[in-house]
Amino acid sequence: MPNKNMLANRTRNMGASAIREILKVVSRPGMISLAGGIPAPESFPMSIVREITGTVIEKYGSNAFQYDHTEGFLPLREALVDYLIEKGIDATADRILISSGSQGALDSLGKILINPGDRVALEAPTYLGALQAFAPYEPHYVQIDTDDQGMLPDALEGALSHRPVKFIYLVPNFQNPTGHTLTMKRRRAIADIIRRFDTLLVEDDPYGDLRYRGTPIPPIQTLAPDLVVYLSTLSKIFAPGLRMGFCLAPEVISHWLVLAKQGVDLHTSTFNQALAAEYLAGGYLKFHLPSIIALYRPRQEAMLDAMARFFPQSFTWSAPDGGMFVWVKGPAGMDMETVNKMAVTRMTAFVPGTFFFARPGDGMETMRLNYTMANEESLTGAVKTIGEVLQDALTQKQIYQRVG
Amino acid sequence: MPNKNMLANRTRNMGASAIREILKVVSRPGMISLAGGIPAPESFPMSIVREITGTVIEKYGSNAFQYDHTEGFLPLREALVDYLIEKGIDATADRILISSGSQGALDSLGKILINPGDRVALEAPTYLGALQAFAPYEPHYVQIDTDDQGMLPDALEGALSHRPVKFIYLVPNFQNPTGHTLTMKRRRAIADIIRRFDTLLVEDDPYGDLRYRGTPIPPIQTLAPDLVVYLSTLSKIFAPGLRMGFCLAPEVISHWLVLAKQGVDLHTSTFNQALAAEYLAGGYLKFHLPSIIALYRPRQEAMLDAMARFFPQSFTWSAPDGGMFVWVKGPAGMDMETVNKMAVTRMTAFVPGTFFFARPGDGMETMRLNYTMANEESLTGAVKTIGEVLQDALTQKQIYQRVG
Repeated sequence: MPNKNMLANRTRNMGASAIREILKVVSRPGMISLAGGIPAPESFPMSIVREITGTVIEKYGSNAFQYDHTEGFLPLREALVDYLIEKGIDATADRILISSGSQGALDSLGKILINPGDRVALEAPTYLGALQAFAPYEPHYVQIDTDDQGMLPDALEGALSHRPVKFIYLVPNFQNPTGHTLTMKRRRAIADIIRRFDTLLVEDDPYGDLRYRGTPIPPIQTLAPDLVVYLSTLSKIFAPGLRMGFCLAPEVISHWLVLAKQGVDLHTSTFNQALAAEYLAGGYLKFHLPSIIALYRPRQEAMLDAMARFFPQSFTWSAPDGGMFVWVKGPAGMDMETVNKMAVTRMTAFVPGTFFFARPGDGMETMRLNYTMANEESLTGAVKTIGEVLQDALTQKQIYQRVG
Repeated sequence: MPNKNMLANRTRNMGASAIREILKVVSRPGMISLAGGIPAPESFPMSIVREITGTVIEKYGSNAFQYDHTEGFLPLREALVDYLIEKGIDATADRILISSGSQGALDSLGKILINPGDRVALEAPTYLGALQAFAPYEPHYVQIDTDDQGMLPDALEGALSHRPVKFIYLVPNFQNPTGHTLTMKRRRAIADIIRRFDTLLVEDDPYGDLRYRGTPIPPIQTLAPDLVVYLSTLSKIFAPGLRMGFCLAPEVISHWLVLAKQGVDLHTSTFNQALAAEYLAGGYLKFHLPSIIALYRPRQEAMLDAMARFFPQSFTWSAPDGGMFVWVKGPAGMDMETVNKMAVTRMTAFVPGTFFFARPGDGMETMRLNYTMANEESLTGAVKTIGEVLQDALTQKQIYQRVG
């Protein structure tokens, strides 16, 4: 009978994280959840999907259902050239690689780059999926401090001066979990740092198109193309269930990314790539994106308004120009895992921020709130409930006993 | 500028294999290729696909485009229960895991089980995709000899007695590349061996449904369910471009397979899983499978007839009851890489068998012929050409100089 002893050492790093338990709890019927990190189903372009499935079957026939190149379906790679040019990214179709979600690109990057013990620098807090993608390759995570303008260049430079890292991972726009966006000044500073230290940067940009106000900021990739792997996904602007990611990497990297992906899934679904190609090249994204923003912006505003009304004075939070999340910081000693348990008894849930830190125990006083999965009314109600629970928590001794 | 020195050690094992170069050559226009290993596009159920895309969008709506559980889309897992029962496999939906092609399951198995240097036993020759999936985890391959009835139980027992292996990998039905099928007697013997050595077996069955004659043989999984990971794919009976694989594993294994997959792609395309669920549960597979067999059987017969007519006496080959391949053995000293180059100059190609052996240099005198991608007439012509090239090769000194 197979047993745990037969598992590879790397498998120890794949332990079921507590957040999965939380997400199970919040899926209970009747629960109002600000814990999720997923797009609203009503944001999916269902009528467009009905239309383009037919178009794609007519246009590509059996080619859309046959094996295809590991690099990706050419019409999609060509459509992505135009998509990336609008972000200021200069790419050719043969340089763009398709992945099964951006998760696929993160796994391949970890696989080709990380030796056990290699240092990987990332934001504190950072995207949980990246931690899960890299973890099996046994990296040593180096947390870089952040503020409301994103990663701190001085902190990054300090870490790189101390000891080199295999690569740096960051989310530049409306970061998950904080919602923070890296300013142009900092993008320049970070581009300058990776040049001086000749260090690879992985720029993960799933939320850039979900901008509710202000003007887009050029990717760091445009400032240091030879040192940056730019990756993104159609999950937030088309449909996450199609698992459609893509990346643009320095040539020496992309060659190996293709070989790694070949061993993992041969290639990403040809049919889904054809749908994505039609969605982009057919102008459907341009047509549909405004309606996604029109759906999310008022939800974010409703949440921020409610937080201003119902959250205790001693709490601060981000007010992002886009994305899907608001990040909340409480007074030191606040234990948000306990607070979440209290909220759940009142059928309201969020994610304690500590799960987004590579170093266990960090960020106990933080939480992530999602506003894409509920309408304005339930968002207001949920924030009111959480505000009351926070008030209770503040006044409860057992919380204060955890201070210091 | 990133360079090779920054790559992980495991990446050395991902070197571009010579077979990829061959497959590039054979994709030249006008080339008659028996080198491929892919289904005929005319075998895809295009009219059914047109029908069920609409059905699925109606039936599941936005759920077919939303994030889903890593384990897989429940309606597909339920449909697979009935599919597996007909093979004699007793499963419940919660035990079945969906993967992005069977390649995805092979990658996850390698990831959770293989430490660098761990021994993995596999057939000589074996499926190239399995070698590519496991290689990044740095296994030590142990080749187990085979004959026209598949893996030799005595050879397997000998290897396990010498030193334990992490797991055994084999393809029981119409194996790639040989087309050989493991007899019931040997399945019992191997089930008995893995019990006595308490060793895990990975049973990869992509071709089982492509049976042109004779009666199906029960999977080894039915003889030792607690020691066998049974995996398969819909690539050969639906459409490979959908990347739809699945597996049934002992519980202690499947828990970790899910965590591994979560880091790799979160989950397999929900839409494609919904299409597969409809294809199976709607009875479309039962309706369509006979037409795939009716397409391939005469192609295989045409190839075998032509080989009998045109291949030199000193060559032997398999006559499989199904699948996609015929395996050819020439006299010792025959170098099939050279023969293939000679055939390519006459616009005909195959894959030299040596690429399917884990140990470099083995099987130089063998070749794999595929008969799914060409019609009877071109198959006959291609076999005639190869037969002539083999005759030339036999009579050419430079070939004989390689003997001994």
